[in-house]
Amino acid sequence: MTAVSDRNHRITFQRSPKGLPVAEDFGADTTPIPTPGPGQFLSRTVYLSLDPYYRNVMKNSQIYADRLNPGDVMVGETVAQIVESRHTDFRAGDYIAVRNGWQEYALSSGQGVRRLDPAVAPISAALGVLGMPGLTGYAGLVYLGEPKPGETVVVSAATGAVGTTAGQVARLVGARAVGIAGSDEKCEFAVRELGYAACVNYKKGDLAAQLKEACPTGVDVYFDNVGGDTLTAVLRNLARGARIVLCGMIEAYSLDTPPAGPFLGPVVGARATMRGLVVYDHMHRMDEMTRVIGGWIRSGQFRYREDVTDGLAQAPEAFCRLMRGGNFGKALVRVSAERS
Amino acid sequence: MTAVSDRNHRITFQRSPKGLPVAEDFGADTTPIPTPGPGQFLSRTVYLSLDPYYRNVMKNSQIYADRLNPGDVMVGETVAQIVESRHTDFRAGDYIAVRNGWQEYALSSGQGVRRLDPAVAPISAALGVLGMPGLTGYAGLVYLGEPKPGETVVVSAATGAVGTTAGQVARLVGARAVGIAGSDEKCEFAVRELGYAACVNYKKGDLAAQLKEACPTGVDVYFDNVGGDTLTAVLRNLARGARIVLCGMIEAYSLDTPPAGPFLGPVVGARATMRGLVVYDHMHRMDEMTRVIGGWIRSGQFRYREDVTDGLAQAPEAFCRLMRGGNFGKALVRVSAERS
Repeated sequence: MTAVSDRNHRITFQRSPKGLPVAEDFGADTTPIPTPGPGQFLSRTVYLSLDPYYRNVMKNSQIYADRLNPGDVMVGETVAQIVESRHTDFRAGDYIAVRNGWQEYALSSGQGVRRLDPAVAPISAALGVLGMPGLTGYAGLVYLGEPKPGETVVVSAATGAVGTTAGQVARLVGARAVGIAGSDEKCEFAVRELGYAACVNYKKGDLAAQLKEACPTGVDVYFDNVGGDTLTAVLRNLARGARIVLCGMIEAYSLDTPPAGPFLGPVVGARATMRGLVVYDHMHRMDEMTRVIGGWIRSGQFRYREDVTDGLAQAPEAFCRLMRGGNFGKALVRVSAERS
Repeated sequence: MTAVSDRNHRITFQRSPKGLPVAEDFGADTTPIPTPGPGQFLSRTVYLSLDPYYRNVMKNSQIYADRLNPGDVMVGETVAQIVESRHTDFRAGDYIAVRNGWQEYALSSGQGVRRLDPAVAPISAALGVLGMPGLTGYAGLVYLGEPKPGETVVVSAATGAVGTTAGQVARLVGARAVGIAGSDEKCEFAVRELGYAACVNYKKGDLAAQLKEACPTGVDVYFDNVGGDTLTAVLRNLARGARIVLCGMIEAYSLDTPPAGPFLGPVVGARATMRGLVVYDHMHRMDEMTRVIGGWIRSGQFRYREDVTDGLAQAPEAFCRLMRGGNFGKALVRVSAERS
């Protein structure tokens, strides 16, 4: 159990990173722990989710609602436990998924808050395979990728939270899942634990050639979590009528001016379809996703891995590591201990 | 009427161009005029179609069935008149659309040949708005672009044969057509003759800014005939849910290694769909297209322009001009006169 202080520790936005973020792009401070007013509750953050899109938020790009000024607490998804409530629907002790940001305590009016049942799955899963990343992988693959039994589905960042979901959903609907990851260790995990039929290490030689070997009949669906050279290599291996789900472009988040993209000639040749995925369009499928994947988790058909860093103070360093591709599994920061 | 010789004049493939094609990439020779065997007919080329994809054929890229060796006659679509027939379904005097290539005379067994009725429209239209370019613009816009009344449809190479068709089909189904072309003269023609609501000259200043002005509610459908920087500029102006039809990449045809493509971030932000169009997938719609557009032509609702060069010997130079963007209207070579 973490020592309890009477102050709220926070990590703040300091400046927009140049290129890959560094710890100095963040600040830290403490404020008094706030007290809930009528209709509010106070919750204590248990887990903070680290997600690549924060890098884009720090750029103050217009596609996000959040705008950060220096000194503002960093935004972010969290799992928290209610400490004190003046809200009729929430009680002290309840576990919730809430956007507390990078801090120990926050007030909420309950808007956009999801209640969590620790009996369904460990509460941290609500930030990964049973949260926004899970919804991204599930809705993107099922509704935009439309995989059919027997088809080949390629997933990049195969062992991240989104990829873990997309890859296992592909397998469980009867497709052949092929992963792309950045180390032999991740590839081994993808095949052994997540059930990918094959996984190629993009740091080892010619990715397009490796994919050709792993996907002898071509790529029917590509769930793209990274963009860049990986996307170019996959485009060289498309099957006729391929569907490409454009989800993340982690390489681009750390650049000030957008990089060039892939040559699209192969998209024409393959009569392929590329579609952009924004997870907020699929919020109405959160219950469906939780039911389907929650069931697979409990029956042992669906697995996931977390990369947990201890202590809020370590969050900036952990985030920088994530952006360098150094994490292995869903990146989380344990901000405080779960209490029962 | 062209003088009749007893030799068959041909333009041949000499070498794969470096960059933009030059006249020296072609050769010329004469052969005896062949004589039809049983089940064959001989036809005399009236019009040769010049199309940018020939540049890709000259690259000996694998996506085309045609493979050219130095000295082979250049491949190409033509309109021809039958001179002598030993085929039960074709008679001397019939006008046909046939792949005679860049030569005055050729034999055919009738396979893939379309019979033309000069009463429907001028026979040269079978190489443009009532031929493969027309089918490309029609099927691509209608079936891949899916324009709805009131939507904004942007068409690049707006006055070429494909663009002429896509832009007018957009207008005639009730959408607002906005063209992109390479001169004020072409833009004026696009608005005055083809009925585009607006047309921007990409050679005049910031294309993305011009498009923003011409498309205040964003681009719902983009029919892309060119790729490259034009595509990038359109991507910056997408409306939510936009459809992009990838059709031609004329810039890329003259390059040995594929160029980079556009940054795809805006495709994600707009939840857009990009689809590759290959006209051969839509051959079964040729009759439908001919019926629909032929009707519009006869009722005066649909117009087109041709850029005719006289004489087969001028074909290489005319093709090089086409690849530099110097044509205005569907590029044709008049190989011989129409006879009645």
